[in-house]
Amino acid sequence: MIIIPEREIAGLISAADCFVAVERVFASMARRSAYNFPVVRESIGHASALYGFKSGFDRENLSLGLKAGGFWPDNAEKGLTNHQSTVFLFDADTGRCRAIVGGNMLTALRTAAASAVSIKYLARADAKVLGMIGAGHQSTFQLEAALDQKLFEKVLGWNIEPNALSRLEAVALKRNIPFERVSLDRLGAEADVIITITSSFAPILKTVQVRPGTHLACMGTDTKGKQEVEASLVAAATVFTDEIGQSIAIGEAQHAINEGLMEADEIVEFGNVVCGNHRGRTSADEITLYDGTGVGLQDLAVASAVVELAITRGVATEMDL
Amino acid sequence: MIIIPEREIAGLISAADCFVAVERVFASMARRSAYNFPVVRESIGHASALYGFKSGFDRENLSLGLKAGGFWPDNAEKGLTNHQSTVFLFDADTGRCRAIVGGNMLTALRTAAASAVSIKYLARADAKVLGMIGAGHQSTFQLEAALDQKLFEKVLGWNIEPNALSRLEAVALKRNIPFERVSLDRLGAEADVIITITSSFAPILKTVQVRPGTHLACMGTDTKGKQEVEASLVAAATVFTDEIGQSIAIGEAQHAINEGLMEADEIVEFGNVVCGNHRGRTSADEITLYDGTGVGLQDLAVASAVVELAITRGVATEMDL
Repeated sequence: MIIIPEREIAGLISAADCFVAVERVFASMARRSAYNFPVVRESIGHASALYGFKSGFDRENLSLGLKAGGFWPDNAEKGLTNHQSTVFLFDADTGRCRAIVGGNMLTALRTAAASAVSIKYLARADAKVLGMIGAGHQSTFQLEAALDQKLFEKVLGWNIEPNALSRLEAVALKRNIPFERVSLDRLGAEADVIITITSSFAPILKTVQVRPGTHLACMGTDTKGKQEVEASLVAAATVFTDEIGQSIAIGEAQHAINEGLMEADEIVEFGNVVCGNHRGRTSADEITLYDGTGVGLQDLAVASAVVELAITRGVATEMDL
Repeated sequence: MIIIPEREIAGLISAADCFVAVERVFASMARRSAYNFPVVRESIGHASALYGFKSGFDRENLSLGLKAGGFWPDNAEKGLTNHQSTVFLFDADTGRCRAIVGGNMLTALRTAAASAVSIKYLARADAKVLGMIGAGHQSTFQLEAALDQKLFEKVLGWNIEPNALSRLEAVALKRNIPFERVSLDRLGAEADVIITITSSFAPILKTVQVRPGTHLACMGTDTKGKQEVEASLVAAATVFTDEIGQSIAIGEAQHAINEGLMEADEIVEFGNVVCGNHRGRTSADEITLYDGTGVGLQDLAVASAVVELAITRGVATEMDL
């Protein structure tokens, strides 16, 4: 059994490695070679914690396992991350536990990779301006992965608490890309691609603020009730997602569907674009929206990649179980 | 993070330790201090494997986690156990992974402990003869734990393949208890307590073969379609179980309910007997039946116990995660 502690992850795997792993698993899901198992999510009645498992199996690279963990709101006081995740991989040929991998940074990296893959396939080829809505811890990962797409000449940022934007500014400046703090009106009017990464429960970005041809990656909504953009904007866009069931139930599309503004069967499984079964964007005026809900297979994909990297570099710690 | 490999389990925890842990968690479940999360069980379409998770949380001892693993039918050819399990425990205060414990022997021990606890609470006080139906690998664990109850003066055994009974004979003789290979008619006519531990898909023990006052622990049926005793015997008995939902869906009671011979609401949650909310057996003529379906909380209970034992004895291997 291989153990890769949380502190080793950053040195082993890059945003680019995660992009490759997540892009591949999107296609594997669409080919029905990979599938997610039912999600377990429980409010355990202790420490106000939400705990559960996301799991699945990808026959193409034999990734089998789960991410376990959840949200412990009082962890910050103890100097720990509130979100705690651990990934467990199993040998698909024998069922034995193959690897245990710290899952906190991997979760951040795979979420960032998913929006970056959506930009590769759904943004206009002439996209130059990236808008960022939200400036929490996760936002810097989203920005790094998006800038790896080498499309963007400028980044515009908005956050409910503007001081936090210095985080995003630092990332952009490190890459010599100009960064501006702007209003939502200006962000929507100038951005070609917009990433939303907040924990909002009310729409931040309005339909009238967004131009035709924009690609939106809505990455913050993963729970019933959360919402980042106006429901009519989701309805006006062509909606792509990682898992349609989650998009309808807990994703950004939940509101547009609940309000009768769109039908569930209009949502496109994004993996079909990656593997060539769906052409993706069809015109320069189309608004595309990737509803990123997060699935276990993405966690398994990046965890499998980090285990392979550790083995290749001879730094994997083996333990007998 | 503490790691306890499979090979250490036998030296760390006894059947008696497991009895205490499983008895306690039955009561915790009945007090609604502990609950099982939804079971994930998937036929993964590779290596004919069944894979999944049983999980839960017990607020009384803060056991939080899951047992992951399943059934790999081709493992035996590779010199591995077909059933593969690993238990993962989490710190209920922070969500961090606390321990990883080999789960193969623990599963055998907790299944044996459950039937032994049912014997303690449901068998007649004057029970002297134990009948064993089934003589596979698991049967020796069931017998060992049952004999710890110190009720039995004789063991009768039946198995579809009689040669395998030498396994059970060896366990009985080690404890100086006489063992006889018998027909099902004789087993039913003489045994005060009967443990069934087979993987049968058709009833083995018939209603006419069983005496009034018998306690049955049916431990083999954990899947739709499996069946160890005649449905009318289940209907004639007072049925106790670890988890009522499982008893109805995948346990021994499924057939009696499907055939309309009994109602689901007649099944008693066994933990209520352990914690004194239900009196259990009410007469010397009553047939009692414990339908052991197996729940994640039992796995967490014995895994938590083995972690505490390893810490107390100073043999816990700590790894940074």
